[in-house]
Amino acid sequence: MAHSEFNSDSEFNSELKFTSEDRQWMQRAIELAREGWYTTHPNPRVGCVIVKDQEVVGEGFHYRAGEPHAEVHAIRDAGEKAQGATAYVTLEPCSHFGRTPPCCDGLIAAGVSRVVAAMEDPNPQVAGKGLARIQAAGIDVASGLLEAEARALNPGFLKRMEHKLPYVRVKQAMSLDGRTAMASGESKWITGADARSDVQRLRAQSGAIITGVASVIHDDSSLTVRKDELGLADTLSNDIVAKQPIRVVLDTHLSIPETAKLLGLDGKTIIVCSNALNAEQEHKANFLAEKATVIKAPLVEGRIDLGWLLTVLADTHEVCDVLVEAGATLCGQFLALDLVDEYWVYVAPKLMGAQARPLVDLGYSTMSQALNFEFEDAVMLGRDLRLIARPVKSDADNTAAGK
Amino acid sequence: MAHSEFNSDSEFNSELKFTSEDRQWMQRAIELAREGWYTTHPNPRVGCVIVKDQEVVGEGFHYRAGEPHAEVHAIRDAGEKAQGATAYVTLEPCSHFGRTPPCCDGLIAAGVSRVVAAMEDPNPQVAGKGLARIQAAGIDVASGLLEAEARALNPGFLKRMEHKLPYVRVKQAMSLDGRTAMASGESKWITGADARSDVQRLRAQSGAIITGVASVIHDDSSLTVRKDELGLADTLSNDIVAKQPIRVVLDTHLSIPETAKLLGLDGKTIIVCSNALNAEQEHKANFLAEKATVIKAPLVEGRIDLGWLLTVLADTHEVCDVLVEAGATLCGQFLALDLVDEYWVYVAPKLMGAQARPLVDLGYSTMSQALNFEFEDAVMLGRDLRLIARPVKSDADNTAAGK
Repeated sequence: MAHSEFNSDSEFNSELKFTSEDRQWMQRAIELAREGWYTTHPNPRVGCVIVKDQEVVGEGFHYRAGEPHAEVHAIRDAGEKAQGATAYVTLEPCSHFGRTPPCCDGLIAAGVSRVVAAMEDPNPQVAGKGLARIQAAGIDVASGLLEAEARALNPGFLKRMEHKLPYVRVKQAMSLDGRTAMASGESKWITGADARSDVQRLRAQSGAIITGVASVIHDDSSLTVRKDELGLADTLSNDIVAKQPIRVVLDTHLSIPETAKLLGLDGKTIIVCSNALNAEQEHKANFLAEKATVIKAPLVEGRIDLGWLLTVLADTHEVCDVLVEAGATLCGQFLALDLVDEYWVYVAPKLMGAQARPLVDLGYSTMSQALNFEFEDAVMLGRDLRLIARPVKSDADNTAAGK
Repeated sequence: MAHSEFNSDSEFNSELKFTSEDRQWMQRAIELAREGWYTTHPNPRVGCVIVKDQEVVGEGFHYRAGEPHAEVHAIRDAGEKAQGATAYVTLEPCSHFGRTPPCCDGLIAAGVSRVVAAMEDPNPQVAGKGLARIQAAGIDVASGLLEAEARALNPGFLKRMEHKLPYVRVKQAMSLDGRTAMASGESKWITGADARSDVQRLRAQSGAIITGVASVIHDDSSLTVRKDELGLADTLSNDIVAKQPIRVVLDTHLSIPETAKLLGLDGKTIIVCSNALNAEQEHKANFLAEKATVIKAPLVEGRIDLGWLLTVLADTHEVCDVLVEAGATLCGQFLALDLVDEYWVYVAPKLMGAQARPLVDLGYSTMSQALNFEFEDAVMLGRDLRLIARPVKSDADNTAAGK
């Protein structure tokens, strides 16, 4: 995590110094932040509440990169009532000129007497400078209220800032016996409409979707977010589909058909291939470069270096959240290489049998090699079950599993 | 369902005639019935509450076959206070001499003025005769209060009485990718201690456990309920293990090792083989008959007729609840033949990979053949997830799944 410039002793940073009212208003600010769930990226989701004499006088949230931050909306909403008020904000106000002026200056100018942040901003351009500047202006400052909840608003943004990597979700749909398609490839539809709509929303909150070239060849998949399947309000849906996730196709030897549907779609497509192409492949790369961004990647054991790719996506392409939608081999690679933060599995209440296609190729032969997770969430979507699991270190698992 | 001898018009049988107090006392009777969850079989679980002037004066439940029924315990508990009281009972009082005298006579003799039953007893020896006899004695009688909840106490007993078949549960343990063991057969332990303890309780409520001879050959499985793994109170656990479920081994060609552990255990073992044995197999059958009950079954396409076997278990062996604990082939057969009422799957948060052993062999090649279920329950047991699914007709599924 970035070093903080905001001076505070540990007591000052503990939740003990906050009142139940403080918690209530920060909870409201967190709710507001969620309004930007599908639209703020690569910016963080942030909410702000301005409270005076136990009454909300201003509210705001960040909606879209390039548009005003949460604090600006709340200050405008409060007007003169901001003077002497407390501002609750889910992330430390920014101190730098980005696409908009620094929010800390806005709060100082508005005349608030206290600023409470749920957490400091790990963005090295902020990292305590915002709170320090507000404090220096003679305003009471506190941080650390509902920090865990505030962090949960922005796993992707935080991972990119703190680790220079995107937050990676792998999503697969399977039958109850762990099958993704019949041997023939037939798979329409394993899961029902509600689960598929949920996948659309998962895509919508992702900065990039990674797939393998096999999916493009066999399914001519488009990897787009489709407005009519989102199940969200009309205006929001319009804003979501106007900014499609980056489509990332892993294609070591450039076998993608030149007629592939996703090459002709709006938005950005990245094709990732080997950095050691032959002449014919170089020729194809040049051709593809007219329709897509071609990234030449180092290989590890003949396969694209996925860790390297993730770094490039976070750094060069500002991707906070990556969704992997791929087959048994590529999903298996991401999982086996421990590059995954969340594993989303949609389970249809069906049995397809042992001849159907497997969920993940791992090449393991002993139980000690098995990958361990913990279930974090289970929810019904129509007739299907959505499980979210998180990888765990094998030590922790052995202890808990007992003998 | 058996024809009822209890005369009642439809209004009389509706829940509308009951008060909220009636519901409350019946709810209590249902709670009491659950005390016999693991011990009453092949008898039904029954609870009884006797209420006078809005006060409980007697309570009872059936604990074990051969011991007094719920009504007897409640009448004893109430003593003289039973006179003029209302008796709430989760199942129609019996009218026949079984191992104990008829409960309807006991209620009449105790002087209760009203009897409320949650449901009539489908046992053809009762089937309305109990309520009719009580009504004929001038006592107010009503039935049908919380009937669904009361039915849920005894799925096995009711299916046996109504359909001459046991209630069948198939249980499997798998990784998140639907694997039951590594290719080598290594499977200890996929699930954790809490899930395995739950399986012990599932065995404990089963009248018989069916397995395939392959499990006996490879694992030398004993299929017993083990006291120290039940996670239940000591006295109850002692009573449970004193009456082990019948062990049923499907062994078409009698390949069971003569040294198999389960042949030497207390309790009953049934070996089911073909009804067309050769001389050598007949010789082995005679040998095995000293240690087990050998059932010679008709074959269908070279395999034991599972439907026939279930009828025999319900009829000859008074089995209400069957638990199938077997491998991919036998579990697949039970499921594909639509002989299953509940499918219990314990899911460990692990990935074992495509080379590991599959959950069910079905031999299907198109999505239209896939077996459809609905999820009924999902609960965490330690780190593992237990899913209970129920087979559904494919028509219903197609409608719900959309296009």
